[in-house]
Amino acid sequence: MKKGENLLPCPRSFFPVKPVMNKSTETVAIVGVGLMGGSIGLALRERRLARRVIGIGRQASRLQQARRLGAVTETTTSLARGVAEADLVVVCTPVDNVVDHVCAVAEEAGPGTLITDVGSTKVQIISELKERLPAAVRFVGSHPLAGGEKAGVKFAQPDLFQDRLTILTPGPQSRRQEVSQISHFWQSLGARVIRMAPREHDQQIAMISHLPHVLAALLAAGTAADQLPLAGPGWLDTTRVAAGEVQLWRQIFQQNKVHVLKSVDKFAQLLTSFREALDKDDMEKVTRLLETGKQNRDAVGN
Amino acid sequence: MKKGENLLPCPRSFFPVKPVMNKSTETVAIVGVGLMGGSIGLALRERRLARRVIGIGRQASRLQQARRLGAVTETTTSLARGVAEADLVVVCTPVDNVVDHVCAVAEEAGPGTLITDVGSTKVQIISELKERLPAAVRFVGSHPLAGGEKAGVKFAQPDLFQDRLTILTPGPQSRRQEVSQISHFWQSLGARVIRMAPREHDQQIAMISHLPHVLAALLAAGTAADQLPLAGPGWLDTTRVAAGEVQLWRQIFQQNKVHVLKSVDKFAQLLTSFREALDKDDMEKVTRLLETGKQNRDAVGN
Repeated sequence: MKKGENLLPCPRSFFPVKPVMNKSTETVAIVGVGLMGGSIGLALRERRLARRVIGIGRQASRLQQARRLGAVTETTTSLARGVAEADLVVVCTPVDNVVDHVCAVAEEAGPGTLITDVGSTKVQIISELKERLPAAVRFVGSHPLAGGEKAGVKFAQPDLFQDRLTILTPGPQSRRQEVSQISHFWQSLGARVIRMAPREHDQQIAMISHLPHVLAALLAAGTAADQLPLAGPGWLDTTRVAAGEVQLWRQIFQQNKVHVLKSVDKFAQLLTSFREALDKDDMEKVTRLLETGKQNRDAVGN
Repeated sequence: MKKGENLLPCPRSFFPVKPVMNKSTETVAIVGVGLMGGSIGLALRERRLARRVIGIGRQASRLQQARRLGAVTETTTSLARGVAEADLVVVCTPVDNVVDHVCAVAEEAGPGTLITDVGSTKVQIISELKERLPAAVRFVGSHPLAGGEKAGVKFAQPDLFQDRLTILTPGPQSRRQEVSQISHFWQSLGARVIRMAPREHDQQIAMISHLPHVLAALLAAGTAADQLPLAGPGWLDTTRVAAGEVQLWRQIFQQNKVHVLKSVDKFAQLLTSFREALDKDDMEKVTRLLETGKQNRDAVGN
């Protein structure tokens, strides 16, 4: 294959200067082929960004499904075999498994292999990896702000990352070239990329992603069974993410406990001030809160 | 027009025994042609359930838009003229205006005219109408659990009520025939219909509709401007309804204050117990809460 041959169908804007996914990233291995891993595979293949996409997982049936859906070109239940020839490995397993999987990949892959993850928490993962990974390993943490409440490769979408943000959390030991390569990888899937320190990431994401999940889950949990048939569009939208996988979210809340608790406290204060305003018929304050909410929601769009 | 002539395209299931929208309901007047009123008009016309659909409102430009979109066949800014020949009048104005508008309709319409509304609160509306409406007036309160955060006739949909629930809140003075006619009216638009006492309605709806709006609005209001660019699918879904019209919701919260406060308190308790569990690393309890949420959410579907 000629260098750059597989890049032609990519939107130009993602490659303003030069092709990024070149010969050196022609083999991508994905550890954990669910919604995220499957969507990465579909995007890579649809955009012809990688010649080989190797799906690695424990369940052969799930891997077969990923292959049938076109998300990967090869599959294996052996991590060692799967990553041996990979230029890039993306670890897409639940946050509690990311560190072990990244370490296993680092041990089995060739020395030049670039590694990233898609975990929704970063402080714990990055600090554990700092302890455990040899300095030569080329790892940069990622968190694509995409996905949804649906689990499994059957819900994978090639455009899942299109126009979505991906946050990179390089540590002090991250080399500029690696950060740049991982950044270009996500851009080549259609994402916009920003960088943050792991602590800032966890703090911001607690508020913008983890807190919404807490509220959605508790709203759904607090609805009595005999009220469920009355659910209209408002309840449906507001609780949608509560259908997400319980163990994934339990792990996220536990890993990001400090910031999740802070976000919950901040929200509880706001709920108390709304409650007091309504109780006292201070409708100006109720209106102000609703207006701020509408302004922020309108500012983001769909 | 022959009796029943306009009923043929209706799904049979809505008319298991006999046509409902017959000659006696061939003219429907809609007071307030926004998302709800416009959708009623579109549904009536698409299903050929009414020969004339008269849109009544204050703004001529908005009425013209409704006519252009096919939601109404005639328009007028005069409530008296608009309802004079109507068999059925549907008042689709904000909850604070419903009582005045229903009373005005009752005064101007013919003696046999059937009147309903679409208000999201019922206790205050029904009790005020009980004081103010002459006993002969044929009114039954309705609340279709449909709609969304988008306001205005341009977002009206002929299938807005399809498979959605509409709650009727007949009072002790409601005659069986009127309740049955209003029930059939909503069924003919595709809705499923149930009946509730006004108090039960307000209590249930506080939890299933008004509380979600409080949470969505406060979540959006509590998000700092510099965090908004990080909003992913979770924040977007959970805050979606916060884009709803502020004054409509201010009125709803005020009218249903007692039950909204109770729902907020119930939710605050749940939030506290989640917070305590996470703080104490009681991950079994956190998991139980998330599981209950997921079960309820999965039970409702999309």
